[in-house]
Amino acid sequence: MTSERTIARLIVYRRLLNRMLGEGVRWAHSRELADLSGVQAAQVRRDLMGLGYTGTPARGYDVCALVRTLAERLDPPGIRRAALVGIGRMGAAILAYFQGRGSGVEIRAAFDSDPRKADRHLYGCACHGIGDLPRVVAEEQIRLGILAVPAGAAQPTADLLVASDIRGIVNFAPVPLRTPEHVFVEQVDITAILEKVAFFAANARVGGPLTRSTP
Amino acid sequence: MTSERTIARLIVYRRLLNRMLGEGVRWAHSRELADLSGVQAAQVRRDLMGLGYTGTPARGYDVCALVRTLAERLDPPGIRRAALVGIGRMGAAILAYFQGRGSGVEIRAAFDSDPRKADRHLYGCACHGIGDLPRVVAEEQIRLGILAVPAGAAQPTADLLVASDIRGIVNFAPVPLRTPEHVFVEQVDITAILEKVAFFAANARVGGPLTRSTP
Repeated sequence: MTSERTIARLIVYRRLLNRMLGEGVRWAHSRELADLSGVQAAQVRRDLMGLGYTGTPARGYDVCALVRTLAERLDPPGIRRAALVGIGRMGAAILAYFQGRGSGVEIRAAFDSDPRKADRHLYGCACHGIGDLPRVVAEEQIRLGILAVPAGAAQPTADLLVASDIRGIVNFAPVPLRTPEHVFVEQVDITAILEKVAFFAANARVGGPLTRSTP
Repeated sequence: MTSERTIARLIVYRRLLNRMLGEGVRWAHSRELADLSGVQAAQVRRDLMGLGYTGTPARGYDVCALVRTLAERLDPPGIRRAALVGIGRMGAAILAYFQGRGSGVEIRAAFDSDPRKADRHLYGCACHGIGDLPRVVAEEQIRLGILAVPAGAAQPTADLLVASDIRGIVNFAPVPLRTPEHVFVEQVDITAILEKVAFFAANARVGGPLTRSTP
């Protein structure tokens, strides 16, 4: 079984390789991928070997073939439909950000407890009342949820997503969620991230290294 | 020196304690903080002991005093001014999200290479052309940068921020940055996060645990 961090790195390699492909680059060395993705070259080689893939010392990896292999590994068919819950400031920003981005994940439906935010399209996405969530998620075979609700509503909304057979949640609400083990949750607490960087920015000594956790 | 992960946890505790304070709660046990923040109670006690703080077994921690202590630790005075670079979809979303949030970080100025996006206010924030960045950052004593530019512009923009004496960068562009050691960088790659969750959602076996990296 592949670990979470390995998958996260493969996703980054794929993005870099796709960009290279667009620039007409045919061959890539592990060192280039390493430099661009901020990991060690040995790590890149280990990760790609885990896909059954080795480059040649002279030319490196065949970019096109590697993109294809990564797609096979990373894109199980028909599961990349997401539902967004919470069409407030954050939710609308997420819709705007992903609309037409071709990221491999499509936000198929958005939901809000405020009926004034339902029954319309926003950035090309159909908006519904929260009561329609179980039905729409089932009809559209959505397995991925994006939570952009206020902190107080996060846990009940997550419960509703889990009851609707959602298997993965990206949680932008600043509270941790309790979910069953088979549901994969990733929290993105933007305010906390900004406060952390502000703290270290304030404590930076020019020329002195920071105490960083190992990634 | 306090590690990055400890600071990240202290920021989460502070948010929880602030909420408790707002709800009139006077005492909090390490177990409550642990449950709400998704860490072990022993970890909470260790972190707070690191601040020179111990609760009493009967009542726990004094919420008000602890909030004050955390503020002293986490809020060095006058350094929480941020500059946003890139007023596209993502940048505008970040401005909208933080405006009036009272998060402890204030976005004082926004910059864009497109002159049509300068010389106006957006969500209460003054927008400037990118050429004004060194002057405005110096005048406003800004030490924190938020990067929301396209991938190709990320590194030159980061170089400009570093040359303007920025000490911390939150990077929303999907490329890693090269910066001097005294600059603290945190990357937030929302597309990659969503793709990772999509991958694990697709590979979830109901009832079976996932392979998660230790946090």
